[in-house]
Amino acid sequence: MTERLGMHTLTEGRGLLFGGDYNPEQWPEEVWAEDAELMRAAGVNLVTVGVFSWARLEPEPGRHDFGWLDRVLDLMAANGIAVDLATPTASPPPWLGHRWPETLPVDEGGHRLWYGSRNQFCPSSPVYRERALAIAGALADRYAGHPALALWHVGNELGEVCHCDVSAEAFRGWLRARYGDLGTLNEAWGTTFWSQGYGDWAEVLPPRRAPYIVNPSQRLDWWRFSSDALLGHFRAERDVLRERTPGIPVTTNFMGFFKRADYWSFAAQEDVVANDWYPEPGDPLSPARTALTHDLMRGLAGGRPWMLMEQSTSAVNWRPHNLPKPPGQFRLESLQAVARGADGLCYFQWRASRFGAERFHAAMVPHAGADTRLHAEVRAHGQELRGLAGLAGEPVPARVAMVFGWENWWALEERGRPSDRLNAVDQLLAYYVPFFERGVSVDVVPPSADLSSYALVVVPNLFLVADEDARALSAYVRGGGVLVVGPFSGVVDPRGHVRTGPFPAPLREVLGAAGEEWLPAPDDRPVRCRWSGGAEFTASTWTELLRAEGAEVVAEFTEGDLAGRPAVTRHRAGNDGVAWYVGTMPEPAALGALAARVLADAGVEGAVPDLPPGVEAVRRGEVLFLLNHGATTVRVPVQDAAEDLLTGTPAREAVTLAPRAVAALRRRP
Amino acid sequence: MTERLGMHTLTEGRGLLFGGDYNPEQWPEEVWAEDAELMRAAGVNLVTVGVFSWARLEPEPGRHDFGWLDRVLDLMAANGIAVDLATPTASPPPWLGHRWPETLPVDEGGHRLWYGSRNQFCPSSPVYRERALAIAGALADRYAGHPALALWHVGNELGEVCHCDVSAEAFRGWLRARYGDLGTLNEAWGTTFWSQGYGDWAEVLPPRRAPYIVNPSQRLDWWRFSSDALLGHFRAERDVLRERTPGIPVTTNFMGFFKRADYWSFAAQEDVVANDWYPEPGDPLSPARTALTHDLMRGLAGGRPWMLMEQSTSAVNWRPHNLPKPPGQFRLESLQAVARGADGLCYFQWRASRFGAERFHAAMVPHAGADTRLHAEVRAHGQELRGLAGLAGEPVPARVAMVFGWENWWALEERGRPSDRLNAVDQLLAYYVPFFERGVSVDVVPPSADLSSYALVVVPNLFLVADEDARALSAYVRGGGVLVVGPFSGVVDPRGHVRTGPFPAPLREVLGAAGEEWLPAPDDRPVRCRWSGGAEFTASTWTELLRAEGAEVVAEFTEGDLAGRPAVTRHRAGNDGVAWYVGTMPEPAALGALAARVLADAGVEGAVPDLPPGVEAVRRGEVLFLLNHGATTVRVPVQDAAEDLLTGTPAREAVTLAPRAVAALRRRP
Amino acid sequence: MTERLGMHTLTEGRGLLFGGDYNPEQWPEEVWAEDAELMRAAGVNLVTVGVFSWARLEPEPGRHDFGWLDRVLDLMAANGIAVDLATPTASPPPWLGHRWPETLPVDEGGHRLWYGSRNQFCPSSPVYRERALAIAGALADRYAGHPALALWHVGNELGEVCHCDVSAEAFRGWLRARYGDLGTLNEAWGTTFWSQGYGDWAEVLPPRRAPYIVNPSQRLDWWRFSSDALLGHFRAERDVLRERTPGIPVTTNFMGFFKRADYWSFAAQEDVVANDWYPEPGDPLSPARTALTHDLMRGLAGGRPWMLMEQSTSAVNWRPHNLPKPPGQFRLESLQAVARGADGLCYFQWRASRFGAERFHAAMVPHAGADTRLHAEVRAHGQELRGLAGLAGEPVPARVAMVFGWENWWALEERGRPSDRLNAVDQLLAYYVPFFERGVSVDVVPPSADLSSYALVVVPNLFLVADEDARALSAYVRGGGVLVVGPFSGVVDPRGHVRTGPFPAPLREVLGAAGEEWLPAPDDRPVRCRWSGGAEFTASTWTELLRAEGAEVVAEFTEGDLAGRPAVTRHRAGNDGVAWYVGTMPEPAALGALAARVLADAGVEGAVPDLPPGVEAVRRGEVLFLLNHGATTVRVPVQDAAEDLLTGTPAREAVTLAPRAVAALRRRP
Repeated sequence: MTERLGMHTLTEGRGLLFGGDYNPEQWPEEVWAEDAELMRAAGVNLVTVGVFSWARLEPEPGRHDFGWLDRVLDLMAANGIAVDLATPTASPPPWLGHRWPETLPVDEGGHRLWYGSRNQFCPSSPVYRERALAIAGALADRYAGHPALALWHVGNELGEVCHCDVSAEAFRGWLRARYGDLGTLNEAWGTTFWSQGYGDWAEVLPPRRAPYIVNPSQRLDWWRFSSDALLGHFRAERDVLRERTPGIPVTTNFMGFFKRADYWSFAAQEDVVANDWYPEPGDPLSPARTALTHDLMRGLAGGRPWMLMEQSTSAVNWRPHNLPKPPGQFRLESLQAVARGADGLCYFQWRASRFGAERFHAAMVPHAGADTRLHAEVRAHGQELRGLAGLAGEPVPARVAMVFGWENWWALEERGRPSDRLNAVDQLLAYYVPFFERGVSVDVVPPSADLSSYALVVVPNLFLVADEDARALSAYVRGGGVLVVGPFSGVVDPRGHVRTGPFPAPLREVLGAAGEEWLPAPDDRPVRCRWSGGAEFTASTWTELLRAEGAEVVAEFTEGDLAGRPAVTRHRAGNDGVAWYVGTMPEPAALGALAARVLADAGVEGAVPDLPPGVEAVRRGEVLFLLNHGATTVRVPVQDAAEDLLTGTPAREAVTLAPRAVAALRRRP
Repeated sequence: MTERLGMHTLTEGRGLLFGGDYNPEQWPEEVWAEDAELMRAAGVNLVTVGVFSWARLEPEPGRHDFGWLDRVLDLMAANGIAVDLATPTASPPPWLGHRWPETLPVDEGGHRLWYGSRNQFCPSSPVYRERALAIAGALADRYAGHPALALWHVGNELGEVCHCDVSAEAFRGWLRARYGDLGTLNEAWGTTFWSQGYGDWAEVLPPRRAPYIVNPSQRLDWWRFSSDALLGHFRAERDVLRERTPGIPVTTNFMGFFKRADYWSFAAQEDVVANDWYPEPGDPLSPARTALTHDLMRGLAGGRPWMLMEQSTSAVNWRPHNLPKPPGQFRLESLQAVARGADGLCYFQWRASRFGAERFHAAMVPHAGADTRLHAEVRAHGQELRGLAGLAGEPVPARVAMVFGWENWWALEERGRPSDRLNAVDQLLAYYVPFFERGVSVDVVPPSADLSSYALVVVPNLFLVADEDARALSAYVRGGGVLVVGPFSGVVDPRGHVRTGPFPAPLREVLGAAGEEWLPAPDDRPVRCRWSGGAEFTASTWTELLRAEGAEVVAEFTEGDLAGRPAVTRHRAGNDGVAWYVGTMPEPAALGALAARVLADAGVEGAVPDLPPGVEAVRRGEVLFLLNHGATTVRVPVQDAAEDLLTGTPAREAVTLAPRAVAALRRRP
Repeated sequence: MTERLGMHTLTEGRGLLFGGDYNPEQWPEEVWAEDAELMRAAGVNLVTVGVFSWARLEPEPGRHDFGWLDRVLDLMAANGIAVDLATPTASPPPWLGHRWPETLPVDEGGHRLWYGSRNQFCPSSPVYRERALAIAGALADRYAGHPALALWHVGNELGEVCHCDVSAEAFRGWLRARYGDLGTLNEAWGTTFWSQGYGDWAEVLPPRRAPYIVNPSQRLDWWRFSSDALLGHFRAERDVLRERTPGIPVTTNFMGFFKRADYWSFAAQEDVVANDWYPEPGDPLSPARTALTHDLMRGLAGGRPWMLMEQSTSAVNWRPHNLPKPPGQFRLESLQAVARGADGLCYFQWRASRFGAERFHAAMVPHAGADTRLHAEVRAHGQELRGLAGLAGEPVPARVAMVFGWENWWALEERGRPSDRLNAVDQLLAYYVPFFERGVSVDVVPPSADLSSYALVVVPNLFLVADEDARALSAYVRGGGVLVVGPFSGVVDPRGHVRTGPFPAPLREVLGAAGEEWLPAPDDRPVRCRWSGGAEFTASTWTELLRAEGAEVVAEFTEGDLAGRPAVTRHRAGNDGVAWYVGTMPEPAALGALAARVLADAGVEGAVPDLPPGVEAVRRGEVLFLLNHGATTVRVPVQDAAEDLLTGTPAREAVTLAPRAVAALRRRP
């Protein structure tokens, strides 16, 4: 993250951003005036324009048609609406694929993917790169200094991956840069296994369809390369834009926990962190999953504000069965984002499309028009956000960190592991939920983060760990921190090589515990365990053969050949440091009990004591947000006299929240 | 449908047709004589010959071997058995694909499909077309005037689709003819969405494997084109045959509700409507589904007779688990077809093959031989059909129409819609069942049909509707008709563009109701509703946010944020017209209650009052068919003294039907 | 099986073989010394070396690096450990696929499969063959006479199949050799069906992706050809090795019931039968399935000893969820193999890999090191095997044979059959279980076996049967044997053509029963039956319409249209011969009752009367093995005073077996 430019560049003088993707090229110009009027009425102050306009802007190679876009930007400027202008490079025009088929991506099985949809480009294609930078440059040249231009939006949801020969050549270049010589590559990939030794760089390929399991180290590097290829593409466009418009921040829209791009590396290269987030209305874990995703975004933004670039007012269109959101739901979700550090609340999209693959995606103005229940909600929400303008830039303080990294994600979930039931994001969420339920704010941080400011660090899983990161975790504990490490951690090094000896080898000392075997448990049978205090609980899926080496056994298995063996250990290390290890996957209630204990170890408390089920409590700046995700009306006790910023009414002793209701309480001075 | 030639050309002097596919080329000639003898004993009067004989007739390009076929036709003629002679073009010989690989079809993912099975041709291939017309012409030249030749059978189950470059060129030609210029194409396909604007015709392609959802308008035109490509192939062969044998009717065999070919357009081009139909013995909805399919065929035939070209005496071979039919079952199904307008009852196939992919498909003569339970049934059934000869040509009167069109089917079921649980044929069947259960005959008609003769028109779904068809539906109501419209209708125009404003836009006025949002409901939770009379019912899957605009609210939702909102509306319009709208998917019992009410509105009654469950009642000409599909013996009251044509016995007051029994009652004069 | 060389060549002076795959090239040489020491401590006397070393041995075409392998073999020799030296041809180096892409296999859909994994070769490729024989020859030249060399291991788990043009040419060659002329091929493949007649050899192809079901006779020949292509490859390598080292036996490792290679034909060409076997710990049928597989291996070895080339000490890595083995489990499984004729007990692999696709496959030395529970078990087991040295070479006598053949397997399981629920191996296992539970030893034999030595022959299924094999089965009964034939047998000839007339045509006379129809039964409804004695039982999935023609009806169906029809028949034929036919799939208990009756007919008894559930009893030579696969401790009565070879303690009256415990009782002289 650069600091010169950022969300503050956008919110200064505007307050929280409110708006959405605006695709006027899909509509006759007579509709545009109504758009502007409705936007103003709804308090819209930012729209994203041009995401999919390449074919319209450059109908044939080198011939540009900017007139319509000039009029759109002028219209927005005239209405005081800022523009987040996109480079249209996520969806090249048909002429690109037709004239240069080598720009079309090829999948693992060798199938070329065609135009007719979107995203049909090979991120490593020089032809594509050249054409993308040209149109980006032309846009920047034309709109530099335009009063509406406030933000650059590079491409869209960057996530393409390609296995073609051009990509293979780029992959080899990337590997040469990483490893220098072929011998080092062979060692890193462990090519003595299955006779994969490379004798010539030209032999090295992306992982393509093969008769059996592909080399996991090769695949790990392929994940890295593919992410870097996308990042390289982002950076190239960013540089073109920055050179021409140095005062305009540059972003691209993330997709939450999206596996194909390492957002830690992306965030470091952009001015504004922006996310697209579409909770599944039918998912009971949706509130926690959403909170976790927001916390990741805040982490990516280095603790500073970020923005929701896309969310939906109701149903999406790309699930097989697209459940809508009930009234009040999108407002609840929008305020949840504000509570967790978002300074921008934008939607896909302004006006529902009549045609194309997303005809049935909800919008701010539905097909039925502006005189609808849905649009009335949009307008009301836009209005009420003005009352929260003071929150822009405010931090969300957290004393707990959870560690999450993409390399670990990639490495963990390859074929050929003990169990495909232990996954990176699920594991993170499982550990996150009890903190969420207790109103404890959590920062999501990378494995390499500076942990010194946290009272508690949770590592739900760190299968792949670098030596230096393991050392930092140990040092954190010795410095007085409280650390919790989940199962199957500390297993491989950054090449994907298993660290030999009792596990988790590089954390064994700080944990005071060591293991011999990873032992997946049958799916259909709970694993019985007991806390040292006597209470029983169940776990599932995963167990380990552990022994304490100085640690206290906090919970043990009570059945089978593991009976009496440690399940959870706790080790006092260094000054007041405490290191926990969890060698199984406890049921949610047991993870809750664990969270309570480690929070006590760390001296951390939730925002509200005895938070009723279904209620989220999170503090941003001076404001305590209470959000009722449950299906019943609840009463939440309030400690200090406060005022609800959303209603302007005072809150004493308690607030009553109907389902989907939100309170934003500012302590009375 | 031409009228000069038709089923009557075939049944005149023959009565109902009875027979099957006869593939003597699979057997030594000494078996043929036994075949003829067994056919005669079984009352066979029509066999389909030559469907898969191309390689045998033309072992190398241009070299013909007709001798064996001469002998087959002569044998049939000598035994008084008519021949439905097939052009063998459904399965080109290996030499075609080997010498001209470009005739082999290519799937969406770019895989060429090879010979070794059947159907391996690109319908747009000029090489294939040339070879197909040549063999068709040679057959017609040779057998014109042969006394056995009674019917031409073009190809087999036409359904091929191909994404190759030759097809792409043909697709472009078809689009040029449809749209004239590229601008119109771009507008129709909504290519401003996702930057898909075409700058040159050469860029336009079939929908091939792409990174994400493909343009639904492009896909809709691809469905149209693919159907037309097959139809073009059919017409080309038909023209070759007609020119040489103008007095011989031409048909091809349909496959019921088969998505890839618009049978409304096919039926208009053939002399005889023929269908292949293989009910799943394990499907409890099979009797209704079969009846509906037969009614579709009668609709395709313009109300005139049609024929079952293929059915099975017992199990098929292409399901993973092929359940057989119990004794009496195929007879029951055969008579069901007669009752619903079939004048031909043919089977695949005469004699079970010893080799090839269909070795285990049941036949009229099983592997075990003629001295078997199954063949005895065949023989008995062939005999009894003679007693029904008088039914040939008789109509099946219906006062209810159900609207079904292929364009709607194609358009509705694209990716990216609110829910993939709402499908065209399932929806049609759901509305059909209560009519079937009440013994109410239904005609299936296209959206453009003349509705003036019907008392009730049911539109289970009409997602895509043309302006003129919407106008015709409205006019029908204003003229006194009763109309029922199911959910998610009136949504898009023929280009697939959503009609903006409250829905169903073009039917809003006649329905006196309007909606704002389509709201799929969770799969695992029924939607609770209440009739205005007070009775409760449940619906599922789908709801809509509706308001009455003049209509009576006949049922409302009773739960959640839709509580109190309309679920079903009824609007008096024009003279005595009534228009119903159903904004959800009611459970079967509720659809039954709805059917009862709309039948009352229309003044239509079933063939038999208080029909016992499991019994089908349908009138053809002067004959009332009663068919017991249930598992128990039932007693069906009969109003008039009648005679059972199948047994020759009189029926007074009631008939008793064992499971799988049928009565064909002719009122006594 | 050649007899000159065999397991005895290996066990002479060594006793039972114990060891595993040893891949020292994955480790620095300093680890090798520890390896040797640990091996000695664990009683390891055989290791398999070099399975995946091609790239290491020949880093570029023609340049060899044998030095490291010299040192490995010298080290093994110095420690008295024999080496099973592999030709490394299962995984060609990247240079082969890179320089000669035509050596890479192509799947049915036309996708080339790449290197990066293993097995990436076309078995019919002359380039691959040439390179494979060259490296095999170089190895043999170098190590001929080396004191460590005890066994050759050709490739690894041969199972590749390829659909490329090179394979197509080889397939045509194979077909020419089989059929001579194209007319015979056309007849054998039944190409009159679906117009598949070939006019030129060049047209003939492997079964590739096609629009619909591919010709089953073509596919049957493709299975045969593919197996023969692998066998040809094996023989070519074997010949190179034999020529250079005539005294060293040659093997390759089987994979149990592996469909793609006909192990009857392979076993006839090798000196030692070796198998890789990985039971699924979560499968309750695992003990029986494993016993059956061992019995197959003993059958392949012609009743002589065989070896387990690969098994796992605990979990594997290639399942989605890899359950570990509890302590004692791998010992139990190892002794089960000994009991059923194995003279070698080897593991994949010695030391767990740190990298590559099999990092998480259990090994003899786990990642955690030698000071672990697991390795302690390995060492103890290696030691105790020495006490069983006397068993080497001892036979496992059996009076019951079960018939199993690959051609039948291939033919039965093609698409387009009555039901895909009736499968060859499942059916074999279903019939095997009751014998296993009764402690009755069973030989698995091919359809062409000499049956004269057996009291009972069970044919769970023989869908494809050659005339001569059917005659041999009939002769066996007439000679006094007891025969049991399962459903859907005797259906097709070796070309896959259905035998017409009542079935099972060629066995009808000996069975005294005949059928007309195969009638799959609904999945969700049991088929009710009754033994003639009155007891009821259920069957499932499959029924047949049968009549007795001399046979006694032992059980009949009691429901539906089959009520009263035969389900199981028993026919006295010839002298004392008895032939049973089972026209359905009885539930396990009913198969148990059937087994009891046919054993009584044959006068065969189990090794131990009243064997408790979960206990396996099998006699090898003079030793009675009792293995407790159950979860509870059991008491097994012993008839004669005996000594437990594993503990050295005497056993009188009974032995008590804890879960996973084993007794090896030698009768006291």
